[in-house]
Amino acid sequence: MSSSAQADPYARAAAKFALSCKLASIEALIDWDAQTNMPKGGSWARGEQRGALAEVMSDLTGTPEIGALLDEAQGYANRLGPAEQANLKEMRRLYAHRAAVPSALVVERARVSQALQATWLEARKNSDWAAFAPGFKKLMVIHKEVAAAKAAALGLAPYDAMMDEQDPGLTCAIIDPIFEDLAASLPGLLAEVRERQASWPAVIDFSGDFSMAKQEKLAQRLAVIVGHSPETSRIDTAPHPFSMPHSPGDVRFTTRYSEDKFRYSVTATLHEAGHSMYELNLPRAQAFSPAGFARGASAHESQSLMLEMMAGRSKEFLSFLAPLLHEYLGGDAACWSRKNVLNFFRRVDDDYIRVNADEISYPLHVILRYRLERALLSGDLAVDDIPGAWNEMFAKMFGRTPPDHARGCLQDIHWAAALFGYFPNYALGEALGAQLFERANADDPSILPALGQGDFKPYFAWVKPRIHEKASLKSFDDIVIAATGQRLSGAALKRHLKKRYLDEALD
Amino acid sequence: MSSSAQADPYARAAAKFALSCKLASIEALIDWDAQTNMPKGGSWARGEQRGALAEVMSDLTGTPEIGALLDEAQGYANRLGPAEQANLKEMRRLYAHRAAVPSALVVERARVSQALQATWLEARKNSDWAAFAPGFKKLMVIHKEVAAAKAAALGLAPYDAMMDEQDPGLTCAIIDPIFEDLAASLPGLLAEVRERQASWPAVIDFSGDFSMAKQEKLAQRLAVIVGHSPETSRIDTAPHPFSMPHSPGDVRFTTRYSEDKFRYSVTATLHEAGHSMYELNLPRAQAFSPAGFARGASAHESQSLMLEMMAGRSKEFLSFLAPLLHEYLGGDAACWSRKNVLNFFRRVDDDYIRVNADEISYPLHVILRYRLERALLSGDLAVDDIPGAWNEMFAKMFGRTPPDHARGCLQDIHWAAALFGYFPNYALGEALGAQLFERANADDPSILPALGQGDFKPYFAWVKPRIHEKASLKSFDDIVIAATGQRLSGAALKRHLKKRYLDEALD
Repeated sequence: MSSSAQADPYARAAAKFALSCKLASIEALIDWDAQTNMPKGGSWARGEQRGALAEVMSDLTGTPEIGALLDEAQGYANRLGPAEQANLKEMRRLYAHRAAVPSALVVERARVSQALQATWLEARKNSDWAAFAPGFKKLMVIHKEVAAAKAAALGLAPYDAMMDEQDPGLTCAIIDPIFEDLAASLPGLLAEVRERQASWPAVIDFSGDFSMAKQEKLAQRLAVIVGHSPETSRIDTAPHPFSMPHSPGDVRFTTRYSEDKFRYSVTATLHEAGHSMYELNLPRAQAFSPAGFARGASAHESQSLMLEMMAGRSKEFLSFLAPLLHEYLGGDAACWSRKNVLNFFRRVDDDYIRVNADEISYPLHVILRYRLERALLSGDLAVDDIPGAWNEMFAKMFGRTPPDHARGCLQDIHWAAALFGYFPNYALGEALGAQLFERANADDPSILPALGQGDFKPYFAWVKPRIHEKASLKSFDDIVIAATGQRLSGAALKRHLKKRYLDEALD
Repeated sequence: MSSSAQADPYARAAAKFALSCKLASIEALIDWDAQTNMPKGGSWARGEQRGALAEVMSDLTGTPEIGALLDEAQGYANRLGPAEQANLKEMRRLYAHRAAVPSALVVERARVSQALQATWLEARKNSDWAAFAPGFKKLMVIHKEVAAAKAAALGLAPYDAMMDEQDPGLTCAIIDPIFEDLAASLPGLLAEVRERQASWPAVIDFSGDFSMAKQEKLAQRLAVIVGHSPETSRIDTAPHPFSMPHSPGDVRFTTRYSEDKFRYSVTATLHEAGHSMYELNLPRAQAFSPAGFARGASAHESQSLMLEMMAGRSKEFLSFLAPLLHEYLGGDAACWSRKNVLNFFRRVDDDYIRVNADEISYPLHVILRYRLERALLSGDLAVDDIPGAWNEMFAKMFGRTPPDHARGCLQDIHWAAALFGYFPNYALGEALGAQLFERANADDPSILPALGQGDFKPYFAWVKPRIHEKASLKSFDDIVIAATGQRLSGAALKRHLKKRYLDEALD
């Protein structure tokens, strides 16, 4: 290291974070491997490897020395260029989160959550909230401590402080009006749409070869259509589809297939392909630095849902998709007509499960969880009272009650996995996806016709410079306003849903 | 960390090395991924990830502070238990290698070697030594510097110091008499065998389905027969078969298939399965510590070659294999007779390529490279004179001259890859494999009959406690003497080859 670098606290801190970012990308890769390739017997060693990476990353970016270095760098931040300033801001944020919470508490949270995930699997199978509750109570005690510590360190309210780690720039003050607006209007819209769809012809049963091999070929083709190439992307299968946090030039995602339903090989593939395109388009100049990361959970989810829902269920794209499905899956031509495919993908559902929900129901599922989480953290709701509160809120939103807890408060892994303050991004991502899609189509009227040809180039030509290449170089608000002319709201989503579900005909 | 741990220099050093060993196992995994899964576009990022791991491992185990800690621990080594003493010895050896060479030189070696590997690929294609020589000269200058530095630090001769990193306990003083003995006797044996085989019937051409899919199923079955299970092992394909340095409970190896030859799906699979069984059986108590590693390159190669050559080409195992090949590959029953399969696998070859060589020729290929390497390092041979020296020595050993450098001095990647002082283990491994196999059969006469049934349990019951579970808890010499009653020599290999190739009939 040169003596000038020695003397430059920004450069010294940035080097430590760059090293840590590289280790984090390795961590993501070995997690991907654990879910796709690793023989079962490797679990113990994989845990040891993860622990080693965590220890080293903590030594690199979580010590008081790093805190002092970052403070020193902040003292002359005005002498740094804009990218360095953004990077310094992100490093300070990440350091603040790390330093706020004693590492013993982090270890304890990981331990309790590890055990609770196994408990949850069993509890969900048996719809047994009582089996899940004791572990979740333990976790809530830890969450409250963590939230209080982060709130004090960051000068934020406790729930905001929890969200800030994954989704900086989003707070309850921003979320609440959006969610209140959606919660007030979507149940009514849902009822209207349901009434309208009652007069539609029944969906003709799909026939064809729905073997995994056929669906896999279809998924690979869809990924290429979206813009992926085997030179930079791979798709694998996993029981729960996910998109690996990627390294530059190497994006990987998994999808799911079910022999009796081809639906997921379309929706899950488009969803994960949307996440992956974001990662693929992040600026190489900021690779392995905190300013080079995607802007946060809601921005990320906007890219998956905009592709899966906004573009992927547009009449134009479904018109392109219908003959493609026939080509890949075979079967009777009648069921693969555009009208029948549209009828299938546009139906609102009577399901109880968030991940299967239609575009209109989806935000409501999320708002329910957000409200419960806030009440849990503030102490207004006890863990034992979750099932009752869940079912009551669900009935109010959807007019039906989950038949069991497996299809109610036990359906998601998030609470077992210690993801708390994370749910909002799913609905915010949908709202942002709609806001971006509306503006993209206004800016470039060729986007929708191109989707009708299976051509995503105009779509990504709009979104790439406005979202993907911005990485974390700007704040969430600045990026959204620059792209759409206004802050995030639920207005565009409501317009989108009304237009698509009340105005558009099947033919 | 407790204050007693703070005060215990052994424990502090061991903790750093354990962390480093975990990172090294991650490095092996991401290298495996690069060869099996990674999209091409990931190369740059993979290089960054590797560099980050190397930097952190160097900070953990290569600093003067670690040297001081190890010296301090050595001061009270007699208070440590035997496993800790062995671990301390290994840590000191690894540290000595790391500390002896300035890191700038290590980086320079990696840089030159990286470029030379690309050059080598082209040069081999064109049989063009002149294209390869300039880069190799640069590398030899670095090797000489490294060897001198290690020799001074370790108190060993330069070539011995180079070998000590991969194969501690083996020196030229041990190798020379073994290699002289084999070099003196194998060419004559080869001529005798060739004369004998001239009177054998011609090998009946094999018929069947040699598609990759069939050969892959065969390889998977062979791995299970040897003792692997999908719970702990996986096989993939790679252009160059290799066995990943494993983590406990997770062993992975690759094999190679060629549509026109089923041979490699047997030999390469048995070879890599042998390496992998060693890793699978290493003691869990020493996992992620230097004393828990396999004993070195020659010991490792003894396990692959003992399985591939000694057991795998025994009349007993080939009798079991012949009908299995018919079952998996189909075709005409006559070609899959035991006699024809034996005739095929036992033939000595007229090839020029080490990796394709028969059991008798193989050590000669290696001895040739060892002699050239020693002359290169001492300065007795110039890089420009390698082709002439190679061809002359080859003609003396085999009675024929390589038709081009691609089948001569340019055939192996090792010199381009900066593996210098590494070749001897291939021949030493074969000699040790024969010595162990002879003793195993003397100790347990049921081993060979069991191989005739495709049962490797008695075989591994002998070798596991004597080699695998010893890890690096004892020296190479101690392990070999405890297992076979004597130090490594070429005597057992000579007896084995004479018996198998001069005495055994085809029927």
